[in-house]
Amino acid sequence: MKVTVIGLGLIGGSIAIDLRNSSMATVLQGVDLNESHASKALALNLVDSMVSPSELKDSDLIVMAIPVSALFKMLPGILDVIGEECVVIDAGSTKSLICRAISTHSKRSQFVAAHPIAGTENSGPDAAFAGLFKGKTNIICEQSKSSPQALAVALSVFDALGMNTIFMEPEEHDRHVAYVSHLSHVSAFLLGQTVLDIERDEKNIFDLAGSGFASTVRLAKSSPDMWAPIFEQNAEYLSQALLEYIMHLQRFQYHLMKRDVKELHRIMTEANRIREILNGIEHKQPKQIVVK
Amino acid sequence: MKVTVIGLGLIGGSIAIDLRNSSMATVLQGVDLNESHASKALALNLVDSMVSPSELKDSDLIVMAIPVSALFKMLPGILDVIGEECVVIDAGSTKSLICRAISTHSKRSQFVAAHPIAGTENSGPDAAFAGLFKGKTNIICEQSKSSPQALAVALSVFDALGMNTIFMEPEEHDRHVAYVSHLSHVSAFLLGQTVLDIERDEKNIFDLAGSGFASTVRLAKSSPDMWAPIFEQNAEYLSQALLEYIMHLQRFQYHLMKRDVKELHRIMTEANRIREILNGIEHKQPKQIVVK
Repeated sequence: MKVTVIGLGLIGGSIAIDLRNSSMATVLQGVDLNESHASKALALNLVDSMVSPSELKDSDLIVMAIPVSALFKMLPGILDVIGEECVVIDAGSTKSLICRAISTHSKRSQFVAAHPIAGTENSGPDAAFAGLFKGKTNIICEQSKSSPQALAVALSVFDALGMNTIFMEPEEHDRHVAYVSHLSHVSAFLLGQTVLDIERDEKNIFDLAGSGFASTVRLAKSSPDMWAPIFEQNAEYLSQALLEYIMHLQRFQYHLMKRDVKELHRIMTEANRIREILNGIEHKQPKQIVVK
Repeated sequence: MKVTVIGLGLIGGSIAIDLRNSSMATVLQGVDLNESHASKALALNLVDSMVSPSELKDSDLIVMAIPVSALFKMLPGILDVIGEECVVIDAGSTKSLICRAISTHSKRSQFVAAHPIAGTENSGPDAAFAGLFKGKTNIICEQSKSSPQALAVALSVFDALGMNTIFMEPEEHDRHVAYVSHLSHVSAFLLGQTVLDIERDEKNIFDLAGSGFASTVRLAKSSPDMWAPIFEQNAEYLSQALLEYIMHLQRFQYHLMKRDVKELHRIMTEANRIREILNGIEHKQPKQIVVK
């Protein structure tokens, strides 16, 4: 199968590695408008060759792993030029706007709207690695609008990545990820910002912060180029999630000021229920940990 | 040296292991008012024997690793009964109230107010392990109020744990840890609460949440018994930190609603500066990672 991956960062690069390893891709080509990424991707052997967006006609499978703002603009043009047998899959973290953008396209059925949920706080071709997706969840939206053949190709791709696929409508997807993914990114970015603001002498943070702080704020290292468009496209749901989070924080601060320790204890005990859920998430992670 | 550890949870238990391994403790006894913890600590061989608080007279060193609410009440009585050569060290996460509680005690100079900054989200004797403190920072407060001999003993203890000790006044300590430790715990507890609230069908969180969510919310697993008293004792500084965090979140939400992507991007880029600081913190961690 001739596979083209558009966008060879953490996600696209890792998909390329897994599709080559699984022998699903017999020819593997890449598109990346960022020249330094393009040459790095070649140097890392993520793909066999780089092509221009106009050379996609004879691909059997196109995987789009670019920021959602670019995805949304580029996807209709890609569908315009592909052959009749080609399947296009995206990997965007928002789904409503993207599904709407091609809802009336004559080749809508050749497209599968997907969100393979995986990542690290790193980005670019260097960040790609084999097995990133193993054991994790993939979401396919509007599966009835994809042809059975396109859906079968997409499922075999996510199967090759080792993912479990579930199905959801785009709005439902966007609402859920606002809470379980986008909100935790915002909370980490602003926790980092708050601490940087107050601890102007950064040496203090370095000395006093333990592994707990590092874990909580880890996502503040994420790429603004990738996340700003995601937040923009999911602004309504993310805004709701943020307001609820702020309300919880304000309520906590109120009880704190009243020294109502019993109530603080009750809130924390309730939040402890996350332990069982996290244990499940942690069991999903690959057992191999790379110590840098 | 005859060492007594009061409170054999994650911190006390891990200190006991390291003091035994370093041969600093020749006799190692424990005090734990929680009977199940006491018998677990013995079964795990964290200490040689358990004693009652009235049997501390002949200890050379007493390490207090109990919740700060209990510490604050128990410390004066401990100082009352110890011998002239005994040194008492605490490991509490707040320092102002504890230092004030014994400021006029006749044996103040035998006490060293410390905060070895280390931990995991787990608690109890089972959670204790060798090397928890290695390479991490310890803070000693009001060092001039401890006798040179008591300070020397304390420094040799933290040296045996592999820690780097720095000195700070209690108020300064409490203000800094409000930002770099207590705030990240509150943010994790309430992120967990917000997501649990909205995702009543917990299966959804399990399916959709990735490792990013797990990392950000990890501290929500922490013990309310330990953290409620810490938050109470540091209510003023933590409340300030919380208000600043809330302000940052509200400002972000405002720009989000206005779809001001440029400003969102700018805020995230600023927060990215945390990367270099985190890299420092991560280098401080022990290289051995236990995969459960």
